[in-house]
Amino acid sequence: MNSVTVSALKQYVDQEVELKGWLYNRRGSGKLLFLQFRDGTGVVQVVVSKKDVPEEVFETAKRIGYESSIIVRGKVTKDDRSALGVEVQGSAVEVIQEVHDYPIQITEDVPNIDKLLDLRHLWVRSKRPHAILKVRSEVVQAIRDFYYERDFVLYDAPIFTPASCEGVSTLFEVPYFEETGYLTQSGQLYGETGAMAFGKVVVFGPTFRAEKSKTRRHLTEFWMVEPEVAFLELDGIMDLAEQQIQYVVGRALDKCKAELKELERDTSVLEQVVKPFPRIHYEEAQKVLQQLKSEFAKSDDPEKVKLSGDILKNGLGDDLGAADETALGMHYKQCICIHHYPREVKAFYMKADPTGKYAMGVDVIAPEGVGEIIGGGQREDSLEVLEAQIKKHNVPPESVSWYVDLRKYGSVPHGGFGMGVERCVQWITGCQHVREAIPFPRTIYRLTP
Amino acid sequence: MNSVTVSALKQYVDQEVELKGWLYNRRGSGKLLFLQFRDGTGVVQVVVSKKDVPEEVFETAKRIGYESSIIVRGKVTKDDRSALGVEVQGSAVEVIQEVHDYPIQITEDVPNIDKLLDLRHLWVRSKRPHAILKVRSEVVQAIRDFYYERDFVLYDAPIFTPASCEGVSTLFEVPYFEETGYLTQSGQLYGETGAMAFGKVVVFGPTFRAEKSKTRRHLTEFWMVEPEVAFLELDGIMDLAEQQIQYVVGRALDKCKAELKELERDTSVLEQVVKPFPRIHYEEAQKVLQQLKSEFAKSDDPEKVKLSGDILKNGLGDDLGAADETALGMHYKQCICIHHYPREVKAFYMKADPTGKYAMGVDVIAPEGVGEIIGGGQREDSLEVLEAQIKKHNVPPESVSWYVDLRKYGSVPHGGFGMGVERCVQWITGCQHVREAIPFPRTIYRLTP
Repeated sequence: MNSVTVSALKQYVDQEVELKGWLYNRRGSGKLLFLQFRDGTGVVQVVVSKKDVPEEVFETAKRIGYESSIIVRGKVTKDDRSALGVEVQGSAVEVIQEVHDYPIQITEDVPNIDKLLDLRHLWVRSKRPHAILKVRSEVVQAIRDFYYERDFVLYDAPIFTPASCEGVSTLFEVPYFEETGYLTQSGQLYGETGAMAFGKVVVFGPTFRAEKSKTRRHLTEFWMVEPEVAFLELDGIMDLAEQQIQYVVGRALDKCKAELKELERDTSVLEQVVKPFPRIHYEEAQKVLQQLKSEFAKSDDPEKVKLSGDILKNGLGDDLGAADETALGMHYKQCICIHHYPREVKAFYMKADPTGKYAMGVDVIAPEGVGEIIGGGQREDSLEVLEAQIKKHNVPPESVSWYVDLRKYGSVPHGGFGMGVERCVQWITGCQHVREAIPFPRTIYRLTP
Repeated sequence: MNSVTVSALKQYVDQEVELKGWLYNRRGSGKLLFLQFRDGTGVVQVVVSKKDVPEEVFETAKRIGYESSIIVRGKVTKDDRSALGVEVQGSAVEVIQEVHDYPIQITEDVPNIDKLLDLRHLWVRSKRPHAILKVRSEVVQAIRDFYYERDFVLYDAPIFTPASCEGVSTLFEVPYFEETGYLTQSGQLYGETGAMAFGKVVVFGPTFRAEKSKTRRHLTEFWMVEPEVAFLELDGIMDLAEQQIQYVVGRALDKCKAELKELERDTSVLEQVVKPFPRIHYEEAQKVLQQLKSEFAKSDDPEKVKLSGDILKNGLGDDLGAADETALGMHYKQCICIHHYPREVKAFYMKADPTGKYAMGVDVIAPEGVGEIIGGGQREDSLEVLEAQIKKHNVPPESVSWYVDLRKYGSVPHGGFGMGVERCVQWITGCQHVREAIPFPRTIYRLTP
């Protein structure tokens, strides 16, 4: 008899098969049981009929609790009502371990997220987290394939870094033998060394921020992909960001149909994600936001009215806030590139435009309230300007002396960006909390399991 | 004019092209200069002839120092003597940044590794590290493709863990808000939660060991791939390990010919890596080692004589030492699987064989003195036995209560293994130090750059 997976069952219609896995759910009466059987690759209905199986098999199928590990044997039959197209007429149920007190109810879901995250090691078996994490797996492979196919060299940045050059307040400090190390917040500066050596590199690994905020959007540990390319300027960076997003979203739409359906994701918004994205100068975005602010204030939709109050809260000339990003997403209903932010609000390594007033940076804002999913731009390539910026931003010069070397020894125009994987998965799956987009989320209040 | 990369030059024979990159080296006389031009995708010879170019172009090409960033224009011509098959007849050299004091000599290499690692941000441009890190990039993609093609779900384990269950002495501790966290040493236990949810998962991320040893083989931060599969038993785990190694080595041989040639790697050993690998019971390995010990003692080769003294140093019935692994590698000249180690020397989660004497684990030993590149096996799936092992190994029960849950709620036979990426790259490239196999190595003495 063939030992097969649920995902392959369609190839075995009218054949006897063996399935190894777990009891996910059960309905039924005194004469007919419908077991929902899962093995990680899918869920199939196994029909156990009292009149067709030995009494002991029927009693076992009736008795065992959810998540009991079992081996099921039976005949595969066509069933057009099921999403899988088949079901199994069970003839034998062998119990590996009988379970009776599985701590998660089938119906339990996001409203109980804190309890469920305490049980994350088990909750990942449930349909919703299972679907989200399968999308994550596809998204990560899509990102890796995108860069591999385009001849980028994978260039892993170190996790332990000797000193921070920005955002000291959100750094995790690690005693490192006789020294103090810090967990990386971004591999970008290291990525730049790679761009000078390989032309095109991609850094892709976990990054860390000691975020004290408790929002739906923050994790202390998250994965970030950071391409960096020599001789690439702002327009080319926007091209690359667009291509990458379109590729990744397209792969998820193509390969994760069942998962997105399980998640009841409205995929029409994702299907609209086609390049070119609207490219909006920061000053233009400010004008649009002023317009949206007054437009939303007069809306019948109380959510829009509420949002209106928060639009441009940071003030003109400042970085965009979450409400601004949400409003722009509602307006354009598509990913947008906002470029040329005021130089003052951006990091020391951003290249200034010829006026000196703007940074040649770009943020990509995703629609549906997701906000910024990409931040990047051209890097300052002038030694003099970079050194002045380091001084102005109070960056300890010794912490970046190796980085400054890149402007001493064959500096060239270059740039790249960073995209957070969990934010991207959150958007694609439409899940409410970014915590759902990673197997074991870490936040200010969560270090377990 | 086409702006092209060195890697694509062959397609432009007899055409005028533009190249953007850096001056890598230069030979020549008063009349003819041979510039070695690099752009990250390769190195090409650019010939600049005094009689064919304006005086100012020739003077520039003669004057600028190594690693000056330049734009070169010229005609591509066939050149069968070069590995690339082409060279460029330079007509213009435009300088982006002129450099004169590049701190690394072309001839500098591994003997100066400490100085070169201080300059790692620049050294990656040199041919040897460039080649090794390109192999690393290919190896990582090959690993990811191997599992993706076989329907494994990528399942990222957390980096921050709440408590350690083994090897406390090599743990990095991190102040985590009001608590204490530890950097992960292995994602395996988390991977097991994924195997129960998805059937087949792969964990792949950085892991950390506060290694105080200064050997060529240790890093404090290294990447590890850890597949974990439900219903997979010891033989299946060895099959998977063999397949994965053969696939990865095969991809490197196929895709990294130029790099392995640059590294002067004798690829004949790698070509012999074909499954099935010899599978040797621990007790048999002990016998072979006893034989090798006396055989090597009588050898004419002083290295073998020296090795002989270290064989079986750990004593019979103990874990294998580095000399044992080296000797076995020399004997079999191929990857080998050593299985059924004595249970006492292995971790608490290893499944005992029916006699209770051996652990159903396996190490894969690579030849050429590389030693263990894979460690894994079947996990204990009995709740009672696991709880007894936890007690015996003095593991704090609260630290593994979530892990024990996997044996309460639908336990099934399962297993997997871990392979260190850097050790694998070190072997494939034949590099001496594992520090060369990662862009920015971290060791007890190195946290920079």
